[in-house]
Formats: sequence, C-alpha cells, structure tokens
Amino acid sequence: MVEIVVLRLGHRPERDARVTTHVGLTARALGASGMLLASDDKSVADSIERVDKSWGSGFWVKTEVSYRSEMRKWKESGGIVVHLTMYGINMPDCIDALRKELAEKKVMVVVGAEKVPGDVYQMADYNVAVGNQPHSEIAALALFLDWLQEGREFKKEFNDGELKIVPSEHGKSVQKK
Amino acid sequence: MVEIVVLRLGHRPERDARVTTHVGLTARALGASGMLLASDDKSVADSIERVDKSWGSGFWVKTEVSYRSEMRKWKESGGIVVHLTMYGINMPDCIDALRKELAEKKVMVVVGAEKVPGDVYQMADYNVAVGNQPHSEIAALALFLDWLQEGREFKKEFNDGELKIVPSEHGKSVQKK
Repeated sequence: MVEIVVLRLGHRPERDARVTTHVGLTARALGASGMLLASDDKSVADSIERVDKSWGSGFWVKTEVSYRSEMRKWKESGGIVVHLTMYGINMPDCIDALRKELAEKKVMVVVGAEKVPGDVYQMADYNVAVGNQPHSEIAALALFLDWLQEGREFKKEFNDGELKIVPSEHGKSVQKK
Repeated sequence: MVEIVVLRLGHRPERDARVTTHVGLTARALGASGMLLASDDKSVADSIERVDKSWGSGFWVKTEVSYRSEMRKWKESGGIVVHLTMYGINMPDCIDALRKELAEKKVMVVVGAEKVPGDVYQMADYNVAVGNQPHSEIAALALFLDWLQEGREFKKEFNDGELKIVPSEHGKSVQKK
C-alpha cells in the first residue's frame, strides 16, 4: 500500500460522535494516514487530533467533505475505493486478490453508519463484507486493515508523541518523553 | 477454544449504549457465545437480542453482573481471563502462547470503557494490548478474537436466523428464510 485513507459516511453529530471517534482512532492506530468525514462535526476531529498530539503519528482529519467528490477524485488519481458493507463479498474470499491489486496503489476505505446511499455501492471498486453478519463498522475497519497489511501495522513506530507505553503484565506504565 | 464469553465493564447507560451494542454484536459475529454486562442497561441487551433473533446464533446477554464475582467464578471453574488494555503485552508478542494455553480451555475476554478498576489488571490471567496505542475496545475485541481463532470465525454458519445475506459485488441481497 502506498497510502491508506478512511472515508466516514453518514455521521450524525451527537448520536455518532463516539463511534466516529473510535473509527478515527482505529484508523490511526492501524496505519491509515487520515480520515475524511462527510459532516461538519469539528468535535470529533478535535478529540482525534488531541490523541495524535499526545501519542504521535501525524494522523489528520478533514471534515465537511463531499463523499461523491472525494471518491471520484480518489479514483481519478489512480486510487482504489473499498467500501466495507455486510452485503459485500466476504473478506476471506477476496482478500488475496485485493492485497495483490493494492500492493502498489493507494486505498480509500469507506465506512458508513446505518444508511449508506446506493451510489456508494456502485462507485466503490470493491464492496467487502467483514463477515456477512451485522456488527460494527469499527470492528470491520480494524479487521480489514489488519488482513490487508497482514499484521504489519502492529510494528509501526509512533515516535513523535509525548507519551509511550511500556508494556506490562499486570499494570500501567507510561513513559513521558 | 471450548467457549468464548465477553465481559463488558464500565458501561454508562446512554453515553455508552451504542459502543456497548457494537461490542456485543462484534462478539456475536466473531464466535463468542454471550456477553456479561456490568450494568443494568436492558436496552443494549434488547438491541443485541433483536439482531440475534433475525440473523441467528443464540447469542445471549446477561446484565447486572458483578465483574469481580464473574471473573472469580470463571477462574475457579478452570477458565482463563484475558483483559484487553493498551497497557498490556502487545498481542503479536503473546498470541502464540495464548493460543496454546486456550486450545482446550474456555476464555473470558474483558473489555472496559474509559476507566478500568485496578483489580481487573491483577485478577486477569493476561493483560493483552491490541497495539500499545489508544483506539477502541470494539476494534481491540475484533482483532483479538480474529487472531485467537486465526480467521476460522468467518467460517461459522448462522443457520437459525430469519435472514441471510447473499454476498453481492455492487448491491444488497437478503434472503428471507
């Protein structure tokens, strides 16, 4: 992958604030470089950017985007759009082909809330189901990013933050830098 | 694994309703048999049980449990308790040992909200970090269940529901049974 960006659709301020914050933090922790948010909810962007400042990486959030124009521009510039939906092709049945296709391309991963407009299914290059069962766009995003990168995302270093965890068997240890 | 059960801590009704619902649905979709909730929020149990009735599996939710007594009983009956926390040992560094230990045992996976009481870190047999970065208990649960079962959870059949998805490349197709 050259780059991973997440596009979050259908965010309703207040109702979805925490779930969208989890989407952004998951994207950041698992190697995406930023999140596009089809809503003007600055509070979500602020929380994610606060975490990023403390823990490092330079993850960005851009609000008030138009999903149609972002998906179109992404495809026009040679990127691939993958929409995660329970109605799509089950991940174990398409991940090998996707890994091959995405090896030298940038990928936009689209995750929706409850209702996703019909044109998203058409505009996406791939509609991928992380299991054909209803669960969570946060879980789906995490599993897709992990399968796509085959676990390499856990080796990413976050060196430019103010805080760093020292892994403990039974406690909490945080280093201030 | 003989059985997987999820224990959700620190749920605050209203504020956490959607995140806890995602925790339960993720647990169900990825092969757990039920969720224990340390709160009396019946609305979460109702939403999850509604999904389960439509889509199948027999996943259960038990509310108003005491986390201490559930963890103690689990351990006394031979089960292993794994607490997911960003402060723990990073998953790639402990998953092989865990898979071996859990092969013929039942596992309780504990996921907290913002503040987790200190005794949870002590009572847990293992404190596992799904990456030592802040993100989401939903993402952490999904990744841990997937790594533990090595992707076999996606082969699980959900045969006793009323609805079933027929995977589509660019649309939605649901079969009523």
